Amino acid sequence: MTHARTRETTSARTSSRATGLWLVGARGSVATTAVLGLAALAGGHAEPTGCVTARPGLAPDPMPDFEDIVVGGHDLSACPLPKRAEALADAGMLPPRLVTLTRDALETADAQVRPGHDPARAEGSGQATAERLAADIVAFRERHSLERVVVIDVASTEPLPEPAPEHDDDALLLAALADPDRAPLPPSSLYAYAAILAGAPYAAFTPSASMALPALARLATEHGVPFAGQDGKTGQTWLRTVVAPALAARHLRVLSWSGTNLLGGGDGATLADPNAVSSKLGSKSRGLQAITGTDSTPLHIDYVPDLGDVKVAWDHVHVEGFLGSRLTLQTTWSAYDSMLAAPLVLDLTRLLALAHAAGLAGPVPELGFFFKDPWGTGVHDAAAQARLLDDWIRETGSRASASGAATGRSHR
Amino acid sequence: MTHARTRETTSARTSSRATGLWLVGARGSVATTAVLGLAALAGGHAEPTGCVTARPGLAPDPMPDFEDIVVGGHDLSACPLPKRAEALADAGMLPPRLVTLTRDALETADAQVRPGHDPARAEGSGQATAERLAADIVAFRERHSLERVVVIDVASTEPLPEPAPEHDDDALLLAALADPDRAPLPPSSLYAYAAILAGAPYAAFTPSASMALPALARLATEHGVPFAGQDGKTGQTWLRTVVAPALAARHLRVLSWSGTNLLGGGDGATLADPNAVSSKLGSKSRGLQAITGTDSTPLHIDYVPDLGDVKVAWDHVHVEGFLGSRLTLQTTWSAYDSMLAAPLVLDLTRLLALAHAAGLAGPVPELGFFFKDPWGTGVHDAAAQARLLDDWIRETGSRASASGAATGRSHR
Amino acid sequence: MTHARTRETTSARTSSRATGLWLVGARGSVATTAVLGLAALAGGHAEPTGCVTARPGLAPDPMPDFEDIVVGGHDLSACPLPKRAEALADAGMLPPRLVTLTRDALETADAQVRPGHDPARAEGSGQATAERLAADIVAFRERHSLERVVVIDVASTEPLPEPAPEHDDDALLLAALADPDRAPLPPSSLYAYAAILAGAPYAAFTPSASMALPALARLATEHGVPFAGQDGKTGQTWLRTVVAPALAARHLRVLSWSGTNLLGGGDGATLADPNAVSSKLGSKSRGLQAITGTDSTPLHIDYVPDLGDVKVAWDHVHVEGFLGSRLTLQTTWSAYDSMLAAPLVLDLTRLLALAHAAGLAGPVPELGFFFKDPWGTGVHDAAAQARLLDDWIRETGSRASASGAATGRSHR
Amino acid sequence: MTHARTRETTSARTSSRATGLWLVGARGSVATTAVLGLAALAGGHAEPTGCVTARPGLAPDPMPDFEDIVVGGHDLSACPLPKRAEALADAGMLPPRLVTLTRDALETADAQVRPGHDPARAEGSGQATAERLAADIVAFRERHSLERVVVIDVASTEPLPEPAPEHDDDALLLAALADPDRAPLPPSSLYAYAAILAGAPYAAFTPSASMALPALARLATEHGVPFAGQDGKTGQTWLRTVVAPALAARHLRVLSWSGTNLLGGGDGATLADPNAVSSKLGSKSRGLQAITGTDSTPLHIDYVPDLGDVKVAWDHVHVEGFLGSRLTLQTTWSAYDSMLAAPLVLDLTRLLALAHAAGLAGPVPELGFFFKDPWGTGVHDAAAQARLLDDWIRETGSRASASGAATGRSHR
Ligand SMILES: NC(=O)c1ccc[n+]([C@@H]2O[C@H](COP(=O)([O-])OP(=O)(O)OC[C@H]3O[C@@H](n4cnc5c(N)ncnc54)[C@H](O)[C@@H]3O)[C@@H](O)[C@H]2O)c1
Ligand SMILES: NC(=O)c1ccc[n+]([C@@H]2O[C@H](COP(=O)([O-])OP(=O)(O)OC[C@H]3O[C@@H](n4cnc5c(N)ncnc54)[C@H](O)[C@@H]3O)[C@@H](O)[C@H]2O)c1
Ligand SMILES: NC(=O)c1ccc[n+]([C@@H]2O[C@H](COP(=O)([O-])OP(=O)(O)OC[C@H]3O[C@@H](n4cnc5c(N)ncnc54)[C@H](O)[C@@H]3O)[C@@H](O)[C@H]2O)c1
Ligand SMILES: NC(=O)c1ccc[n+]([C@@H]2O[C@H](COP(=O)([O-])OP(=O)(O)OC[C@H]3O[C@@H](n4cnc5c(N)ncnc54)[C@H](O)[C@@H]3O)[C@@H](O)[C@H]2O)c1
Ligand code: NA
Ligand code: NA
Repeated sequence: MTHARTRETTSARTSSRATGLWLVGARGSVATTAVLGLAALAGGHAEPTGCVTARPGLAPDPMPDFEDIVVGGHDLSACPLPKRAEALADAGMLPPRLVTLTRDALETADAQVRPGHDPARAEGSGQATAERLAADIVAFRERHSLERVVVIDVASTEPLPEPAPEHDDDALLLAALADPDRAPLPPSSLYAYAAILAGAPYAAFTPSASMALPALARLATEHGVPFAGQDGKTGQTWLRTVVAPALAARHLRVLSWSGTNLLGGGDGATLADPNAVSSKLGSKSRGLQAITGTDSTPLHIDYVPDLGDVKVAWDHVHVEGFLGSRLTLQTTWSAYDSMLAAPLVLDLTRLLALAHAAGLAGPVPELGFFFKDPWGTGVHDAAAQARLLDDWIRETGSRASASGAATGRSHR
Repeated sequence: MTHARTRETTSARTSSRATGLWLVGARGSVATTAVLGLAALAGGHAEPTGCVTARPGLAPDPMPDFEDIVVGGHDLSACPLPKRAEALADAGMLPPRLVTLTRDALETADAQVRPGHDPARAEGSGQATAERLAADIVAFRERHSLERVVVIDVASTEPLPEPAPEHDDDALLLAALADPDRAPLPPSSLYAYAAILAGAPYAAFTPSASMALPALARLATEHGVPFAGQDGKTGQTWLRTVVAPALAARHLRVLSWSGTNLLGGGDGATLADPNAVSSKLGSKSRGLQAITGTDSTPLHIDYVPDLGDVKVAWDHVHVEGFLGSRLTLQTTWSAYDSMLAAPLVLDLTRLLALAHAAGLAGPVPELGFFFKDPWGTGVHDAAAQARLLDDWIRETGSRASASGAATGRSHR
Repeated sequence: MTHARTRETTSARTSSRATGLWLVGARGSVATTAVLGLAALAGGHAEPTGCVTARPGLAPDPMPDFEDIVVGGHDLSACPLPKRAEALADAGMLPPRLVTLTRDALETADAQVRPGHDPARAEGSGQATAERLAADIVAFRERHSLERVVVIDVASTEPLPEPAPEHDDDALLLAALADPDRAPLPPSSLYAYAAILAGAPYAAFTPSASMALPALARLATEHGVPFAGQDGKTGQTWLRTVVAPALAARHLRVLSWSGTNLLGGGDGATLADPNAVSSKLGSKSRGLQAITGTDSTPLHIDYVPDLGDVKVAWDHVHVEGFLGSRLTLQTTWSAYDSMLAAPLVLDLTRLLALAHAAGLAGPVPELGFFFKDPWGTGVHDAAAQARLLDDWIRETGSRASASGAATGRSHR
Repeated sequence: MTHARTRETTSARTSSRATGLWLVGARGSVATTAVLGLAALAGGHAEPTGCVTARPGLAPDPMPDFEDIVVGGHDLSACPLPKRAEALADAGMLPPRLVTLTRDALETADAQVRPGHDPARAEGSGQATAERLAADIVAFRERHSLERVVVIDVASTEPLPEPAPEHDDDALLLAALADPDRAPLPPSSLYAYAAILAGAPYAAFTPSASMALPALARLATEHGVPFAGQDGKTGQTWLRTVVAPALAARHLRVLSWSGTNLLGGGDGATLADPNAVSSKLGSKSRGLQAITGTDSTPLHIDYVPDLGDVKVAWDHVHVEGFLGSRLTLQTTWSAYDSMLAAPLVLDLTRLLALAHAAGLAGPVPELGFFFKDPWGTGVHDAAAQARLLDDWIRETGSRASASGAATGRSHR
């Protein structure tokens, strides 16, 4: 996968920073928390704690503010956002006060949710499906006169597809997509393709195939679409990529890194399926193995329904020190998963809008900070990623300001 | 405290890199482990795991190799190094195999240990004491034809002295030192002053006053002595300065960071004294409070004799995330403390030799990586410290090479 | 302290089981949770999870049902129960739904709360104070035609009083109580004396002096008052008395048992005072030391306000096994303290009512199950206590039924 | 499975208490630790810490002393006991000092080890194999003039056999055993059958099929063989059966009990095989589910070779308390597994010798204390088991004394 390159900014940009956030899986737990949170931030009911882009001195002018963001999306679920929010509040996952205060915004957002693509009921060619999904995105952009729409996939984790030649070859892929009797792409990749067709910057917050197929990634780059992924790095994996490089800087040798995750909720139920979980377990271990050089990293995800959306993760790290001595580190992490993910989803919306405003296309490796399996880079070290991200925000901010200025328009 | 400045390298340097390591507290647990470890490394019986300077690509030519290092020191204890090593092996703290293999080296080193300064039996002025201690160091340097001697304080933690005007004013200090009826400096500071008198680079691995008194620090700088401190950052505190900045990079807010340490051994016994422990507790909390901005950081050190030199540390971190949500992180760290400290003592020997070879004088802030309470800098973030250290090693290596070349000599 | 003896049941009993629960500290966190919980149970809004007396097959007929219990009490706080419940709900400590459902009951109970004894503002003799407090209890009993009133102390932990001869000698005590210029008893003991005067069974859920003074205990026995204490065994201490006897049964030797408690809330604030905390630390360690035979049991209670009423307790147990081997057990316990305490307060109400109905007087050692520092017994082993309790319930139930039958009255 | 019944003590007993311990898997980690430990105890080099039968006041006269026990056994491994002990000492699992002190005893024991039954190389009928194994046991008994030999299976865990009619029907079983073309019993059950043929009391310390097949159990009873099993309850499972009943006594409701085990060593390698591990996972969960009533008990055993024979087990218990509140308990247990198992193997030797001396035959449910999956009883509660065991020791001790006295012989 090649790194982001600068897209030709041929078309003039409008003066507004109004930005769409189109959520694939718009009625899920992460999505509901993001939409409610956005409304709470815009309404001044909450602080942007947990939002990386809200750290002081880090919001360059061309990046949209939280109140500039309008939400829509696709889902298969019929449970409207306000109802999902209430259910999450009853389970102790969302503050009841905020559910009340944001009910209107949740209803407004829910009105922008369109039926997603259900592979079990799909009809017609993949091309037709993707065009239908893209049309939903374009209509949303036009309806709200948005400068751009960022598509973020927060739908249920899918099993990975069998490898196929179409995944590597654009021509083969387009041919297969046109054939109503074939289904060369899993749903997540059809959504990614729809984002390409709609010219929308895209992020994969899940470990599903999505834009990770080379043929799709090339198409995105050619269509001037910046994209980032994959699989949000929010809890245990994040902590591992914090601690493992620090052990390496001490020249301490990791012998084994064993872990267990306990999780209920929708994501837990999905991951109880051994097919779905395999993509997740892979993306959780790759970074750790890259940093530590050990492959003794047993890892489990257990579905424990009574925990709801609380994720409890235990790690046991066995380390060799000086003169063959042994040390152990254990960590227990307990958090409401969607509360970690939602602010990062908002960050990605702002940052991909910035990338797009700066004319970038293709994978944006500097957004690797946000992902377990970062595209376009081998850097997993969280501190190194944070530094790269901050530098990138500053540079891209300048470039986007310059390009905005060059085309003679200003923001506000 | 001002940052390291370049010392005038007036005197020509000899061609050898033979370097002395003079340990204050030379028969303690950390010292014994360091001396045994050095012998094991030099003899090819062990890998330099845990030595920061042994990471690939990080040993510039003017830095001494492990086999270039000769050991001596001061202590009050009469228990010889081989016997202390055996006791540590019996307690499961050192590998019996290595004690056997390094017995000769331990005996050789022990023969270089001189009686230290015992405040309970001291006679004569502070100046006289310091001169006696300095003479031991100089004699050691000459006896072994060493290029330079690095003094490292690994003696028992002392209570902090009452503040006094002599600590800030050089003239007052020198006058008080000359007076046999006054004792303006605690032992650790007398050792630091002796290092200055001997022209020896110096590191404080303890939280004792040592070189932290402004008048002494100024004297060191004036005498061309580079120095670094203070209080080795080896375990729980190190982990805290790894994790806390990472939480900040996520814009997550630490509400409280509570901790407990359990420790037996000599250091544990010393720290069971509430006077001695206060300097330690202070240096353990300062960095954390600087990074997180919270002062809700209750911390205990308990003396648990049956644990021996194993330190067990538990931390409970309470964090506010998005929309007022709460997350917790617990860590349990269990390690043989001296096995963490000893390789860093060897690193400091090599790095202060390098600083001296490059003509640096005064505090070396880039060595802050090694310390809980870094002198000359406010940076506590372990990842940032690692970067600063690596840059410094490269730069100082070049400078020392250049200065060696300029005076027409080469290393091997 | 002698064991419970059978009181002469001279006076005839009314046929009703209507029982009063008089809470000292009636507006505190434990009390509020108990009152709300009682209303929720009586109203069928909750299950009696956590109530020991609600286990199947364990409620003998003469024991009052939850709906038979009427609440009143003393407190210094002016914050009414419904408001305190709301505050606890806002802090995530009580389910908002139940606060709404029980508002009427909370208001009713709050109307029965009388101003307590504030030592800072006290006037008159101790005798006069106790009589005033006893009169409140008697009036409550008569107002509601209650069979009996059980007094339970759940007020803030007090510092322990200095030892004094009055504490051991009834005559001296009564004389001192009569003297308006002396204050021989701390508040908790005045409340205990008031219970005696009112003929009310009594339990000390706190580690305060209360009925632990021999002269008072004797008076209680003479007045036919059964009583139990002291200091509710709800969390970490309970767990210790579960695990420690099990290690002993395996003939494993505890070397050290180190612990830390983190706690916010009202109790946390009180215990941040070193005077108040000492009684607590004592009662937490005594049982453990008795069972394990080690006195290496360092223990801390830290006030961590951001935790609210959640108590987090970490224990590190270092154990010697076969052939000098070592094993470690760590436990982390995290719970809302008052949710553990409240059901036990309801249990004690039912069980002391039963004791009284059966004509018992003096300390009831079989209620030691509920307490860190059990009166009238040296048994700390939780499993042994559970067995003793269950046997006692059955026996006392039979005795109370028989005595009820003997006096010609039946319950319903 | 029926409970132990009294065997007809027709034959006269010799006056000696000399007792054989025949270990199936005699050169494994548990066995080596048990043999070394026995020698250390007999030689006065160690205390019987971890031996349940060494608690004060619990060793009735007819129970053999440690020094009365002589060791032999079967194994497939050719690595002699002294060498295995050295390897364990090098890995830090056994004290080097004790290996030196017991070398002679280890050699003596190793000389009594006979080749075991290797199913991969077996020839002839099952009956012939069992007779060959039984002959080894009988020869050992006669060679050393032993009163009796206790057989204990501490061999590698086997996969469970497919259910078959022979397992339930004695006649079918004996017929199949006689047929050289059939293999109705897995190795562990052939060893159990050999014990029956040799008239030797038997214990299954593994979860393998062994005596758990009804037809075999009946044969044992008929042949006057007392037996106990199965699968030693030494660490995590033991802790669970300590804590779970205590939660039940508080009427707290376990929602889920999740666990992970990390283990290297020989047992870890065996359990890395999914077939072998299934019998273990089953026996670890059954007791917990019986006590708590929940089946939400995800459990893993991970093979982590760098941990050696240290077992690290983490448990996360999610509990519902009063009014729907939640509490969590986490435990981390870290121990050298064989050091927990070995003293219990010695206990079982003494106790089964006692059972045999008292004339018992069939399963001994009161030895359920020692097992994850206790035969002949549904009691899993560790405290209840301890009580039953202690009562049984006293009663059986009296009975054995009486029966010894009745036949006119005395012990020493
Ligand atoms: N910390 C985190 O929460 C975190 C971190 C990394 C990745 N993720 C990933 O984020 C995703 C969402 O997690 P969640 O907890 O919100 O899960 P969830 O089950 O609550 O929500 C998933 C949503 O996707 C919808 N969906 C399923 N298939 C769809 C399709 N074909 N088209 C459109 N919508 C579809 C579902 O109806 C549901 O509303 C998961 O894939 C998870 O692995 C979450
Ligand atoms: N991870 C670590 O081990 C670590 C980390 C940071 C700091 N430290 C510090 O390192 C120091 C040494 O720790 P240790 O475990 O080796 O302790 P120790 O008690 O084993 O050794 C201290 C030695 O200092 C000697 N000593 C005491 N007073 C002296 C004096 N006036 N002059 C000369 N020698 C004197 C003692 O005799 C003893 O041999 C302590 O101050 C400790 O706080 C250790
Ligand atoms: N698990 C548990 O919660 C637990 C376990 C054991 C013991 N306890 C003990 O229970 C007691 C109550 O705990 P809490 O969390 O409810 O504390 P809290 O601070 O919330 O409540 C204490 C109440 O006592 C009242 N009070 C103080 N002095 C008084 C006086 N002289 N007369 C009458 N009322 C007075 C206060 O006004 C307050 O309302 C404490 O002593 C605590 O140590 C609690
Ligand atoms: N705490 C504990 O250690 C513990 C607890 C419960 C159960 N167990 C069980 O005890 C057993 C032994 O554990 P270990 O750690 O000693 O394992 P190990 O692998 O060190 O030893 C097993 C021994 O059995 C021998 N063996 C294998 N197959 C055999 C056969 N057919 N006949 C005779 N010998 C055979 C092997 O050669 C080896 O010497 C395992 O089944 C384990 O599950 C151990
Ligand atoms: Na999730
Ligand atoms: Na084992």
